[in-house]
Order: sequence, then C-alpha cells, then structure tokens
Amino acid sequence: MYKCNAARMEDKIKTFSKFGDAGHGGITRYSLSPEALMAREEFVKRMEAIGATIETDDLANMYATIPGTDPNAKRIVMGSHCDSVKNGGNYDGILGVMGAMEVLETVVAEGIEHKHPLTAMIWTNEEGSEFPPCMMCSGIVCHDYMPERFRDNFEYNKMMASKSILDPEMTFGKKLSTFKFKGDAKNRLNPEQYEAMFELHIEQGPILEDAGKNVGVVTCVLGQMIYRVKFYGFAAHAGTFPMKKRHDAFHAAAEALCYLHEEIDKLGHEDLVYTTGEVVIHPCVNTVIPDYFDFSIDVRHTQPEVLDQVREILLKLPEKKWQGCDCEVVLGWNRDTVYWNKKLVEYVREATEELNISHMDINSGAGHDAQYVSYMLPTTMIFVPSDKGLSHCEPEHTSVEQCTDGASVMLNAVLKLDKQGL
Amino acid sequence: MYKCNAARMEDKIKTFSKFGDAGHGGITRYSLSPEALMAREEFVKRMEAIGATIETDDLANMYATIPGTDPNAKRIVMGSHCDSVKNGGNYDGILGVMGAMEVLETVVAEGIEHKHPLTAMIWTNEEGSEFPPCMMCSGIVCHDYMPERFRDNFEYNKMMASKSILDPEMTFGKKLSTFKFKGDAKNRLNPEQYEAMFELHIEQGPILEDAGKNVGVVTCVLGQMIYRVKFYGFAAHAGTFPMKKRHDAFHAAAEALCYLHEEIDKLGHEDLVYTTGEVVIHPCVNTVIPDYFDFSIDVRHTQPEVLDQVREILLKLPEKKWQGCDCEVVLGWNRDTVYWNKKLVEYVREATEELNISHMDINSGAGHDAQYVSYMLPTTMIFVPSDKGLSHCEPEHTSVEQCTDGASVMLNAVLKLDKQGL
Repeated sequence: MYKCNAARMEDKIKTFSKFGDAGHGGITRYSLSPEALMAREEFVKRMEAIGATIETDDLANMYATIPGTDPNAKRIVMGSHCDSVKNGGNYDGILGVMGAMEVLETVVAEGIEHKHPLTAMIWTNEEGSEFPPCMMCSGIVCHDYMPERFRDNFEYNKMMASKSILDPEMTFGKKLSTFKFKGDAKNRLNPEQYEAMFELHIEQGPILEDAGKNVGVVTCVLGQMIYRVKFYGFAAHAGTFPMKKRHDAFHAAAEALCYLHEEIDKLGHEDLVYTTGEVVIHPCVNTVIPDYFDFSIDVRHTQPEVLDQVREILLKLPEKKWQGCDCEVVLGWNRDTVYWNKKLVEYVREATEELNISHMDINSGAGHDAQYVSYMLPTTMIFVPSDKGLSHCEPEHTSVEQCTDGASVMLNAVLKLDKQGL
Repeated sequence: MYKCNAARMEDKIKTFSKFGDAGHGGITRYSLSPEALMAREEFVKRMEAIGATIETDDLANMYATIPGTDPNAKRIVMGSHCDSVKNGGNYDGILGVMGAMEVLETVVAEGIEHKHPLTAMIWTNEEGSEFPPCMMCSGIVCHDYMPERFRDNFEYNKMMASKSILDPEMTFGKKLSTFKFKGDAKNRLNPEQYEAMFELHIEQGPILEDAGKNVGVVTCVLGQMIYRVKFYGFAAHAGTFPMKKRHDAFHAAAEALCYLHEEIDKLGHEDLVYTTGEVVIHPCVNTVIPDYFDFSIDVRHTQPEVLDQVREILLKLPEKKWQGCDCEVVLGWNRDTVYWNKKLVEYVREATEELNISHMDINSGAGHDAQYVSYMLPTTMIFVPSDKGLSHCEPEHTSVEQCTDGASVMLNAVLKLDKQGL
C-alpha cells in the first residue's frame, strides 16, 4: 500500500486557501474569476513541476496527465472543481483537485509503476455561483450520454447564454471566450481516451463524523426532486381589513409547511431529507397582507418509491384551500439516484481496508460533477468527514490527516483499477 | 345644507388620475417626483382660479386659502396627500386634497358666507414610498406637539438624511432642496393661525361597503404596534444533513406563526387586526437549510389593554426553542390610539344626518397625517367606502357620488365649526 504525503497536502491546502480568501476563514472564488485563475495557475505550476502535460478544453476544463507504461491504456482521471459558493470554505471541490494532484505527485515522487496514464482535472463552474446552473460544464461535456429528459438542462447554447447574477451584461459564454484557459473541444473528457473517473470530496454532512469514520465509501448520489409550493391570496391593508375576510398567503404557507413536516415525517423514512430553503413573498411590506407566498422543497432519497410517496403528499396540497388561498405545486427539477460503478466502489472499499482507515458506506445527498460523468464513464467517489457536518460556509473544515487519507485511498484504488481492470 | 358638485368632482378625479398613470388603472406617484409636481401644479391652477392664495412651507407642504369675513378668525384647514405607493390607486390621499378643493370651489361658486378663512392643503410624503418613513412631513411639522416618545421618529435632520430606496446617492433633503414648491418654514401649519383640521379619506377596508353605508364618521386612529419576530437556526446542506439534527429557522417561524394565530384568536377580540407582512430569510437558497428567518407582526386595536394581551403572547415566544432555534422578539414601532376631537366628530355626524347620507361610526386602522396634526390642532376625519375594501393597489375605487358625498359632509361640518366654534 502506498501513502500520500501529509506535509505536501497541507502545503497545497494552505496555498489554495489564499486564492479568494475572504478574510474570515473561507473563500469566495467564482468560476472564471481572477481568484479562480490564480488557483488554476497554481495547478499548472505544480503539475508541470512533475512533468505532467496540460490540456484544456473549450469549456476551460483542465487536464494534467502523466503517462503510463502501456501505450494502449486509457487514462484514469481524478478531479473535481476549484470554484466556490459565496463565502464558502477551503475544501468543497478544491479537495478533489488537490487530492488528484497529490496522487500524481506521489506516483512520480515514489516512482510507482502504472500502465494507464493518470490525469488530474478541474471542472469549470460546478457551483454555478455566478452563472447558473451548478455542475454546468460536466453537464455540457456529458450531454449526449445523459438520459433524454435531463439533456435540455445542459444544451450548449443555453448554457453559453447563462446570465451573470452580478452583471446583467455578462454571459457565461462571453466570460469564457476571454478566459486564459479556454482550449479546444477535442480535449474534452471522452470515453475513447478515458477509462474511469474518481472524485474525492468532503462529505458536507455530519454522518462520518458522528460515526467516527475517516473515509466514506460512496455508493450513490441520492435521487432528488425540487418543487415550488405556491399560495395565491389577496392583498389588503393591515390596519383596515378584518381578520375573517383575509386570504393571507403567508399564513397559508406556514400552515402547509407544518402540515408537510407532519405528513412526511409520518412516512417514517430515517434517511429521507427534505428542505424548504427558498422563499418568495409579495409584496413583503409590513402593513400589507401578503397576496403571494411560495417556498421551494428539495427532497432526496435513494429509492424512487420513497420520493413518490412524498410527491403524492405534495401534489395533494392543492386539493384544499389553505387559509382561503389557492395552492399550486410545480416541479422545478429532478434526478434519479445515480449508483457508482460497483467494481470501482469495491476497489475504494478494499483500499480503505488495506490502509487500515476507519470507513463506512455512505451515499451522497449533494450533487457532484461525477454524477454526470457516470453517464459517460465508470465513476465513483470517496468522502472524507466535514467538521460538524458544515459545508458551503466559511467554517467548513477537514483535517490534513483526513484529507491525506482520502488521497491515499484514491491512489490505491486507482492502482487496483490500473492493475486489475474493470 | 349645501352640496358639492359631482361633475366638478369627477373632472378632478379624472384629471388627477393622469399624473403618474401606470397604464393599468392606477398610479405610481412618489412624493417630489415629476408626477407629483404635475399634481401640485394642477392644484395651484385650480385654486388660483377661485382666487385662493397659495403658500408653501419649507417641506413643500402646500396651502391654498380663501379669506373669511372675520379678520380675526383662524383658518380651518382641510387636506391630505397627493403621493402614492408603487402601483397604488387614484383615491388614497388625493381624494382628501380633491375634497378640500371641492369644498373651496363650492363655497366660492355658491357664495357661501363664512367667518373663518378656509384652507385646502397638500402634505408632502405621506406614503414614504421613496423616502421612508410614512407621514414624514406631518410628523416634522407637528414634532414639538407630539408625546416625547414619538418625537425621535421625526427629528428634522434625520428626516432630511432619509435615503431614497431608488437611488442611494439621493436623500430627501437633497431632493427637497431643488423642488419647485419648497417654501418658507414660517408658512408651516401652526396653532396660532389655524383653528382645526379635517381630512377626507377612503376607508381602505370593507367595513362601510359591507354595512351598506356611504360615509364613515371616524372616531379614532387605532393604536398600533409592530414587532419583528426573529429565529436563529443553523445552515447546512439540504442533501447531506439529517433531519433530526436540523435547526431550520423557516420551519421554526412557520410553527410560531401558526401558534400566534391560535393564541391571538383565542383572545376573542373581533375588531383586533394583526398582520405578518414582511419576511427576511437567509440564505434563501433551495439547497440550504435556512439559518435565519424573521417576520413582522403589525397589531392594531383601539384599547391599549388588548394590545398588551397580544404583546404578552409575543414576548413569551422566546421562552422556548422553536424547532431547535432561538427566538427573539423586537419592537419596531408603536403608537397610541388617537381619538379625534369630539366636537368635530359630532359636527361630521350631524352634517351626514342632515344630508340624509347613510353613515356609521368607524375607526381608522391605517395611519394618516391627521393623526400627527391632532397633537397640534383639534382634528377629525371622514371616510368614504372602498370597493371590496381594496387600497394600496390599482383596483382601488370609490364612486364619484360617494366622493362627492364625502366632500359635502366635510363642507357642512366645516360650516358648523365656522358658525358654532369648538
């Protein structure tokens, strides 16, 4: 068994944490920003230092490759993204890039023999922080391999026209066209040149920490559906309109939200998660009864049957009036549960056991580039713990040892694939 | 009994509805805007046409006065505001200005004898749509007569520094300084020159319509308190954070809102109104559990004891955790119930009866300039019905006949005061 180098890993963590440092522990590093450019230049510098060849595709996805001994073997790719959410942490995404770099650096430093070329990569715009949607560029690259009903989400021209949330004059395509690392479409990830993909990532939840495990052997990305639940009431003056005649959309939504929690919790699925995170209220004035309120509900579970049970509860909401308001439930987004390649999951589990690292099987509630890649290539993921389960915020943290353990697991799983094949 | 002229009233309604016409039935006419300027120029044109003298004060409040026969008698003033909320209606505020103009026009046209000078006036910035707070200029003018604890709200320099919600570079003072009708502070409403004030206004609620009455004899402006109810939770990833460990601030707020409705309704006060109209949620992202939610609650009733009962329910909320979240309840604003001058209310009631107009006593849930004036001068209000109780929206409507009835009542009540005194 080989082990990655904790000191080298720590140096990378410290260095990359400077690019977009928001001054209070975390980073803001939107895709294609000057801060993201600095991170990519550091990636190039370090990968060129070990003799890797750098390629970039037309979406500015970056690929650093070291050759293997077999000229006919396809590349094994490892990677993630280097962009963040606003005031995000120093681990989400970038850990998977640093882990891939660390694997290549270890292979070169230790002279580890391998047949397949090994590639470390960066996906552009995973967070979609400035230009929605998230996982945009893995979506575009894997477009033709996706199930029909998801393809529309990543139609190339639509993505290029994605508008900046910061500058209404700017589109993703326009910003990309002048970006230093925009390259050639022929360099895109493809099944002719690439064998399989690994993505190392922080868990972004508290399950590993609570179980006292250092590595999560990820088996799938949870199926997800997002609905908007909308209530249509009647605006009137707060001081003059009698209570009994009101159609208060906020009161309606609050009542329905409590009802949803009761009904969904009654289903009794321990591993079901659902979140009502986004809200629109109109007119949002303290002296006017709200005539409109809507909230998002994001529901995730491995089994489609469980999602169906929740969907049934949701779709029944409009059958009655809520505080005199009409209710409408509209689908925003959904995806199936994506199971990782069983052989690759097995290699990860074996590597973890052989390295004597505490581990457990886990599924991913969050979406990752790997899930789109899985439509094109055999794919899997490795999780390391998140302190207190925190992510998408500045206190996000994983210890150097855990980050290095994750990279070591990836290294040994890659070597198993290299030797034993799929 | 004298009657105002419906045709002349209708002409005014049609004319003033053009100034700020939003193209779909209502108006947007912020104070000091070009649209408000047009309305004021129309006011000047029509008042000069009947020989009224125009004065303006340092806050651009406008006063059009016709003389009476007694050189020692103080002025009787009638008026309201000509600014609107965004996409507001053609009656809120401006009806009180048009009604005052109609009274003066009728007095001149019919040669009605009167001892006191009669003044029609426009208050600047009642709505506070661009420059908060509402009722700003009546607040400033009546500042020294207000109860101590309200004065801070209308401190002159603070009001001049009020920032535009449209243009962060613009303050109320700056905009006022270049406004055509900014005049001299010596012209401000004052108790040495003015005897009493009347304000004609639409009800902005459905009570008169439901009761089938054409005039409301207003007896008071309801006491009001506005609190913010805040919940502090814990943000985490929607897909990865188990339900049982969550501290969801939106769920907490929804539960507390439903609880408040139950508890307040149990008090059993039919004429109590309370409204939760404004909401803040953080981070408002569909994949993140909200860590902060707050809503406003605006509560109004004539009796302070009833407001105290509601306050007690509100202030007890933080005694427990709501969905694991801390709760805080913060006072935003309050005012006492303001009772109108009994003699003036009696004159209004008598005038309505003598004119044979259907009427009822009513209180005002909304705030009006008259409530600040009442700290300085004997004051009262007259309401006319709002179709379906709608106001602060474009469908706001009151028939020409009802508007004219309201003006006729004001005319005859003013003549009673002119003859019989207070």
